[in-house]
Amino acid sequence: MTTADERFMRRALELAERGRGLTSPNPMVGAVVVTPAGDVAGEGAHLRAGGPHAEIEALAAAGNQARGATLYLTLEPCAHQGRTPPCAPAIAEAGVARVVAALGDPNPLVAGRGFEILRRAGVAVTSGLLAEAAARQNRVFLTAMTARRPHVTLKAAMTLDGKIADAGGASRWITGEQARAHAHRLRSEADAIVVGVNTVLKDDPALTVRLDRPWPREPYRVVLDTGARTPAQARVIRAGDPARALVAVGDRAPATSLRELQATGAGIVRCPTRDGRVDLGALLEALFTRQVRGVLVEGGGEVHAGFLDAGLVDRIAVYLAPLLVGGRAAPTPVGGTGRELKSAVRLGALEVTRLGGDVLIEADVLGGRED
Amino acid sequence: MTTADERFMRRALELAERGRGLTSPNPMVGAVVVTPAGDVAGEGAHLRAGGPHAEIEALAAAGNQARGATLYLTLEPCAHQGRTPPCAPAIAEAGVARVVAALGDPNPLVAGRGFEILRRAGVAVTSGLLAEAAARQNRVFLTAMTARRPHVTLKAAMTLDGKIADAGGASRWITGEQARAHAHRLRSEADAIVVGVNTVLKDDPALTVRLDRPWPREPYRVVLDTGARTPAQARVIRAGDPARALVAVGDRAPATSLRELQATGAGIVRCPTRDGRVDLGALLEALFTRQVRGVLVEGGGEVHAGFLDAGLVDRIAVYLAPLLVGGRAAPTPVGGTGRELKSAVRLGALEVTRLGGDVLIEADVLGGRED
Repeated sequence: MTTADERFMRRALELAERGRGLTSPNPMVGAVVVTPAGDVAGEGAHLRAGGPHAEIEALAAAGNQARGATLYLTLEPCAHQGRTPPCAPAIAEAGVARVVAALGDPNPLVAGRGFEILRRAGVAVTSGLLAEAAARQNRVFLTAMTARRPHVTLKAAMTLDGKIADAGGASRWITGEQARAHAHRLRSEADAIVVGVNTVLKDDPALTVRLDRPWPREPYRVVLDTGARTPAQARVIRAGDPARALVAVGDRAPATSLRELQATGAGIVRCPTRDGRVDLGALLEALFTRQVRGVLVEGGGEVHAGFLDAGLVDRIAVYLAPLLVGGRAAPTPVGGTGRELKSAVRLGALEVTRLGGDVLIEADVLGGRED
Repeated sequence: MTTADERFMRRALELAERGRGLTSPNPMVGAVVVTPAGDVAGEGAHLRAGGPHAEIEALAAAGNQARGATLYLTLEPCAHQGRTPPCAPAIAEAGVARVVAALGDPNPLVAGRGFEILRRAGVAVTSGLLAEAAARQNRVFLTAMTARRPHVTLKAAMTLDGKIADAGGASRWITGEQARAHAHRLRSEADAIVVGVNTVLKDDPALTVRLDRPWPREPYRVVLDTGARTPAQARVIRAGDPARALVAVGDRAPATSLRELQATGAGIVRCPTRDGRVDLGALLEALFTRQVRGVLVEGGGEVHAGFLDAGLVDRIAVYLAPLLVGGRAAPTPVGGTGRELKSAVRLGALEVTRLGGDVLIEADVLGGRED
């Protein structure tokens, strides 16, 4: 690998980034076609599910110049017929001499077969350039493909003394405008937002994506609601398309409540229960079937504890506000019975971002899965 | 003010920094003598209480070159006889033509009189250059001089879900080595470390300064202990010079316990009580009389709540560890009954520092004093 290879791959990663929040259930992908003379002949990005793949865009832009060229790809090209034809054969047909990829695609429909098709057609293939950055970029897709369940991020906004609300339950607003706008961006990148029914009953949140411009994809708004206590008038159902609201209920939820909820147009997801609560693994499975790849869990603390205890958390995003509210009884981001310090869930790869007066800390859960 | 003025003042601030943690009850001060040609003729710093003042050092180094020179000072020169003679007259006598200061000294023994002596002697005086940086550097001294009580910093180490211990009380160790070394540096800069007796009974901390090299100044180790429950064998007394241990007891503390404590060589500070606990304002007063200017309060959460509720906190230092421990009952950095979110204590001027895997957030309390 040369520094030129690295430069073109960085460009491909940059192109891929344009699709953030728009490509699910597909990954983000960027592609750059470079002539033997070192000139960029074509660029492409995957910008929405069902839309053209990055490599096809880049090849189209390059035209005849693709012959003998190098194609930089942030992910292995697909080998299967989806909503669009497979890319690997198209790359070979275009006469590309060499493919440099950042990562193999763990999707079982690809999983090395994209590279295989290229090699058989005489295309030189190397993989692994800037693999870490590419994996970071597509962490949601990659986790979903390897774990066969959606990638889960816990999100919380807390004071610098660790409270997500005051002792009386008030939580609006802990963070400032910039942090709240950022939280809407996190929502926009998710396929489903999950909260507990107590949050619905207490705060009546809309859970919609509210950014400067209307957002083209509406994530599912999911309520963990074993007993079907979500009111039919709840904003989580009414504030957006009711069909994008899902109420995850236990197998013993009262039929009358279910009928009322169904009448609103909201979806009902019947789940087995575990320790008297909706089984979170079963819920994630149901969401995965609905093409959900990235889930944002917005609390409260008991819901976060449930996901952590089930070993179903991949990442956290904690917004820290420059406030001290105190209170022995004030809730914290993770409740439950807790665990011993020596077996605490460990986090890594911390990213710290200032957002106005607030600080955002994002981190990956390290080997924290107990499943 | 010119960019040259600013450059020399930055140098003076740099020199002053050498005294950090060593000058109390005096401020840190740096001084630079610059000839009319723009050459540095002498530099000085105040490096320990009782030692020579920065301006005298700088003038001595400059010798005859001080005549007609400009003297850059991070703080107004003193006007009073202390352990050393007053500096302002010495500056005039040395023939300095111009003094550029960052700040006036709020110490009532100075408070403009230093500048006044200079002006009367025909020295040109300007003040206010890089005042903000200078005030930040000497925040402890300046708060102590203006509030007539020690500057108080609350320190806590917590998990990213806001816990200072697990639900069973275990707190060793939440943070990693680098953060703990940094916490010892904070201790070294304080004149007194304060903890509650419950922390002593639970963790038996030494509260000594443990840095790479032995630290020349031993801060007071203070226990808030209304009922005189600190065991005579406690490490807070035994691990350092017992005379630097102070037990702050209420007026009804049992005489036998007090005698046992006194026998160890520890000091007893009898305080009035307020709501059944040692009155924190009275304790700070007693510490101020003992030349304490900077206090580091190391918890627990109830002690922190006490200081905050009394409006006696100037700054916080929160070490955040990449861990999630959970637990509704696990303690947080600030307990007590708490306050409403809308009247939360507001923090400003956040500084975020990475320390190994941990993150330190330091901030000033904004208008949070209720006294």
